[in-house]
Amino acid sequence: MPTQISTPQPLEPGTLRVIPVGGLGEIGRNMTVYEFDGKLLIVDAGVLFPEEHQPGVDLILPDFGPIRDRLDDVLGVVLTHGHEDHIGAVPYLLKLKADIPLIGSTLTLALVEAKLKEHRIKPYTLVVQEDQTEQLGPFHLEFVAVNHSIPDALAVAITTPAGRVLHTGDFKMDQLPLDDRITDLRAFARLGEQGVDLFLPDSTNADVPGFTAPERDIGPVLENVISRARKKVVVASFSSHVHRVQQVLDAAAATNRKVAFMGRSMIRNMNIAAELGYLRVPDDVLIDTKKAKNVPDDQIVYMSTGSQGEPMAVLARMANLEHQIEIGEGDTVILASSLIPGNENAVYRVIDGLTKLGAKVVHKGNAKVHVSGHASAGELLYCYNILRPRNVLPVHGEHRHLYANADLAIQTGVPPRNVILGQDGIVVDLKDGVASVAGQLDIGYVYVDGSTVGEITDADLKDRRVLAEEGFISIFCAVDFTTGQCVVGPEIQSRGFAEDDSVFDDVRPQIAKAIAEAAANGTRDAHAFSQVVRRTVGRWVNTKHRRRPMIVPVVIEA
Amino acid sequence: MPTQISTPQPLEPGTLRVIPVGGLGEIGRNMTVYEFDGKLLIVDAGVLFPEEHQPGVDLILPDFGPIRDRLDDVLGVVLTHGHEDHIGAVPYLLKLKADIPLIGSTLTLALVEAKLKEHRIKPYTLVVQEDQTEQLGPFHLEFVAVNHSIPDALAVAITTPAGRVLHTGDFKMDQLPLDDRITDLRAFARLGEQGVDLFLPDSTNADVPGFTAPERDIGPVLENVISRARKKVVVASFSSHVHRVQQVLDAAAATNRKVAFMGRSMIRNMNIAAELGYLRVPDDVLIDTKKAKNVPDDQIVYMSTGSQGEPMAVLARMANLEHQIEIGEGDTVILASSLIPGNENAVYRVIDGLTKLGAKVVHKGNAKVHVSGHASAGELLYCYNILRPRNVLPVHGEHRHLYANADLAIQTGVPPRNVILGQDGIVVDLKDGVASVAGQLDIGYVYVDGSTVGEITDADLKDRRVLAEEGFISIFCAVDFTTGQCVVGPEIQSRGFAEDDSVFDDVRPQIAKAIAEAAANGTRDAHAFSQVVRRTVGRWVNTKHRRRPMIVPVVIEA
Repeated sequence: MPTQISTPQPLEPGTLRVIPVGGLGEIGRNMTVYEFDGKLLIVDAGVLFPEEHQPGVDLILPDFGPIRDRLDDVLGVVLTHGHEDHIGAVPYLLKLKADIPLIGSTLTLALVEAKLKEHRIKPYTLVVQEDQTEQLGPFHLEFVAVNHSIPDALAVAITTPAGRVLHTGDFKMDQLPLDDRITDLRAFARLGEQGVDLFLPDSTNADVPGFTAPERDIGPVLENVISRARKKVVVASFSSHVHRVQQVLDAAAATNRKVAFMGRSMIRNMNIAAELGYLRVPDDVLIDTKKAKNVPDDQIVYMSTGSQGEPMAVLARMANLEHQIEIGEGDTVILASSLIPGNENAVYRVIDGLTKLGAKVVHKGNAKVHVSGHASAGELLYCYNILRPRNVLPVHGEHRHLYANADLAIQTGVPPRNVILGQDGIVVDLKDGVASVAGQLDIGYVYVDGSTVGEITDADLKDRRVLAEEGFISIFCAVDFTTGQCVVGPEIQSRGFAEDDSVFDDVRPQIAKAIAEAAANGTRDAHAFSQVVRRTVGRWVNTKHRRRPMIVPVVIEA
Repeated sequence: MPTQISTPQPLEPGTLRVIPVGGLGEIGRNMTVYEFDGKLLIVDAGVLFPEEHQPGVDLILPDFGPIRDRLDDVLGVVLTHGHEDHIGAVPYLLKLKADIPLIGSTLTLALVEAKLKEHRIKPYTLVVQEDQTEQLGPFHLEFVAVNHSIPDALAVAITTPAGRVLHTGDFKMDQLPLDDRITDLRAFARLGEQGVDLFLPDSTNADVPGFTAPERDIGPVLENVISRARKKVVVASFSSHVHRVQQVLDAAAATNRKVAFMGRSMIRNMNIAAELGYLRVPDDVLIDTKKAKNVPDDQIVYMSTGSQGEPMAVLARMANLEHQIEIGEGDTVILASSLIPGNENAVYRVIDGLTKLGAKVVHKGNAKVHVSGHASAGELLYCYNILRPRNVLPVHGEHRHLYANADLAIQTGVPPRNVILGQDGIVVDLKDGVASVAGQLDIGYVYVDGSTVGEITDADLKDRRVLAEEGFISIFCAVDFTTGQCVVGPEIQSRGFAEDDSVFDDVRPQIAKAIAEAAANGTRDAHAFSQVVRRTVGRWVNTKHRRRPMIVPVVIEA
C-alpha cells in the first residue's frame, strides 16, 4: 500500500465525503472531516505524542491543510470524549478561527474549556448527551452512549441524504462499568436495522484476542495492596481516568487513609469531575497536598500523574528524590496505568529508581492494576454482528490495528471490497450505500515545538537525529579568494564529537592546504570552497575516527 | 541506596574479593572479577546495548579500570555462554593484553573465536565441559551444565580457601529441553551439601511469577503457522538461538519447505553450530540464499536476523522494500523472539511496514512463538532450596530484578543480612563463610563509537541530547577588540532549529550592538565577548521562540 497522492474529483451533489486527516497509521491526532453539500463537519481534533525519532517535538497536530481555506464552511467540531488524542488540537484549530462551535458531552466540554482557558480562548459550545439528536446544516447527528476509560464518551451517527455513518470514537464494552453507563448496544441494533452505510470503529485493541477485563476487577486489587502497605502509598494513573481515581478513593476510604491529589492536571481534572458529579468523593477522604505531610505515613495515599515516566511529572521527580514527598523504605507505589509502547525505558527507569529507594512497586506486570479502555477483538465482533454495516473504514490505530479490525469485519460477513484500509488523507465518498476511495491527499505531520507550530520540518528532525547520533563539527575560514590563503581560521568548533579539541590539530593544516589547492585550480566562490572544506573534514573524520558527524563549513571572503 | 564511593582496604590474606564491574543495574556488560592471593579470575566480559538517551553509541563496555593496571595477574576469563552480553567485550579486553586465556565450552569458544577473527586476534583458549574441574592458581573451578537460550551454557563453582562461590551465568530450568541437557540440579544439590558460601544468580526474570514455558512448546506453533502459510515465510530470531532455529528447520522439513539463512551473523553462527553438531540440519532442507529465489514461494522459509527492529538488519530492510526479498500480499512473517524493552517502537515500525505490504505478521503478542531464556521466580525458588546458600549476591539485572531476586532468597530462608544488593563496582569480601561489603568503586560507562573506545563521555552524550532536542545555532564574529566592531560576521549557522535562515535577520544587529557595547564598557577578551554573544542570542531565542537550542559562539580578534 505505497502512498499514491491523487487529488479527488470535485464532490458530486448528494455525495458524502469522509477524510480522516489523522489517526490512520498512528494512535493519536484523531480528526475526521465530513463534507456534504459544501458544508463541513469535523469529528475530534486530537494530538499525537512524539516518538524518539522526533526529538524535541512537544506535540504533533493533524494537518489542517484540507480545511485551512474553508474554515467558514465548518459547522462544528464534534468531540467524542475528553482525551488529549481527541481534543488536544482544538486550541490550535480555534486559533485559526475562534468561533467554530464545539459539540460534546458535559464532561468533555468542561475538560476542553479548562484547556482553552490556558490558551485564553472562550469557545462557543453545544452540550449534548446520549440519545439526543441535532441537525447541523445537512448533517443529522444522533449521539450514542459508549463506555471508555473516561466518563461521558459518545459515539455519533451522522445521517445525510447520502446515507448513515456511525463514528464510534474510542470505546469498549465493559458490561458492568462503575457508572453503569454501558455502550448502548440497543442503539447500535436500532441503527443497524435502519442501515449503517459506513462504520468507523476504534481499532486500538483489534489485534488483542478476547475481551477487555472489567474496570471493576481493579478495585479489590487496589484495596488489597493498600491495606497491606506499611507506610506511604503513591498511586499513579492518567489524570483523566475518573473511574480509576474513584476506585483509589474508595480503596483509601475502606482502609482508613486520606487521599491527596498531586500534579496540576490531576488536580484540575478531578476538581472538574467532582464538581460535575462524575467523581463521588467519600466523606473526609480528600485532603490538601500541603496538609498531607502532617498525616502519618500509614494513613495517606498520594494520587499522582507521571505513570508514563514523563521526566517532569510527580512520579519521576519522586524517583529522583527531587520531590517534596520523599520515597523510602517500606513505601508502596502503584502504577495503575497502561505502559504505552515507546515509554518502556522511561517507565522502567522510574520503577528502578523507586525500587532503589526501598519502595515496593506494583504495576500491571505484577498485579492486575490496569485494564485497557478499548474494545478487544471479541467485543468488536459483537459490534459488527449487531450493526451489520455495509462499509467499514477502520480508524484510530497503527496499520497493524487497522488491518486486524478489517479482518474482523470480513469474518462477520462484510464483503472484503467494502472494507477500506487507508492512511491519513484518504478520501472516501459515500453515495447510495456505496463507499469508494476518491483520492488520497498529501498529509504531513505538523510539529509543535515551543511556541512554534509547523516551523520545524521533517528535514530539521533528520538534522536533529544526525546531531544526536554523531554531534557536529563546524569550521570557519575567511579566505582570500585569489590566493586561497586562510586569513582567519580554520576555526573549528564541535559538540557531541570528542571531549578534547586537540583531536583537530592534524586536520587544520589539511583544510588550509585543500583551500589553497582549490584556489590554485581556479575556485573562486564561497560555496565551492565550503564543499572543499566539507570533503576534507569528512574524509579525515571517516578515515581516522570511523564516524559521521554533521559537518558545517562556513567560508567567507576575507 | 545512593552511591557512596569508598575505596576498600587492601585484601587480607585468606579472603576472596568479588567485584562485579558490570551487570548490576543493567541487563548487559556482565563481568565479575574474583581476586585471591594477588591473582585475578574474570567471569564473563559482555557488552551493553545503548538506550535512546545514549545516542550514536554503538556499544557500552564494562569499566576495565579496576584491572587495567593488573592485567599480568589475570589467570583467565571464564565465559559462561556465547551471548553478546557475556562475550562481546572480550575483543576489547584482549586488545589490552592478547594472551589472557579464555575458558569456556566448545560452542562458546567457537563463537568467541569467530568474533575475535574479525578483530584479527587469535586467543589462547581452554575448552571445558560440564562436570570438568580445573585448577587455575588459587582458584578451583568446577563447571556445571545449565540450560539457556543458547546451547552449551555453563555455571561455574569457584572454590578457594576462603570458601565456595557458585556463579550461574544465565540459565533457566526447562525440564524437557530440545537437547536433553538440563540445568544440573544434582550438581547444585551436591554443591549445596558441600556448602555454597556465596551464590551469584541470574536475576533477569526474578520478577516474573511462575515458570518459564518450555522451548518445546514453540515447535508445534511454528509448524502450524508455516503449514497454513500460502506464500513465502520469513522467521526472524536471534542469530545465536540454535534451538529456535532447529525448530524452524524441523517445521520446514515437516511442511516440505526449504530454508535459507539470511544475515551475516545468522549464517556464521549456524555454520558453526552445524559443524560442531549443535544444530541438526534435516536432509535437503538448507539451500543457499542465492538459489532461494528460484524456489516457489510456498516452498521456502527465510530464517533471518532483525527481530529487534535493528534498522540495518534483514527484516527492517524487507519492511522498507530495501531488500532483494520482496514481501507482499499473502506472505507470512514470524518474529520468534522476545521484545527487548526499549526496542518496541522499532519493532512495531517493522511490523507495521510488513503489514502494509500485505504480510501476516505473527509475534509473541498474538501467538506462542517465543519463550524466555531465563529462570522465572518459581525456578529460582527451586535453586535456593536445593543450594541453601549462606550468602547471595543477585547479579545480571536492573535494580528491580536484583531486588526481586533478593526477595526470593529471603523467602527461602536466607537471612536478609546475608543478601547483598549492590551496583556495578561493589566490593564484596568473603572469608569463613561471611560475606561483607568492603567498598564501592567508581564505575563508569565506556562508550564505543565508531573506532573510538572511551573517547565519547557522558558530557558528549548530554550535548548530543540537547542537539537532538533543540538543534544548534553557531555564531562567528571577528571583532576589533578595541572598537568592538564586527569586522567579519556575525555569521550565523544553524541546524535542527528552523528551515529558513531569515529568522536570524533581526538578531544579527542585536549581536553587533551587544559586542560594541561590551567593548565600550571595557571588555577586551575573546571569552568575554563570546559570553556576550551567547547571552544575546539566548535571550532572543527564548523570548521570541520559547526554545533552547545549543548556542555556540566563536569570537576571534580581527
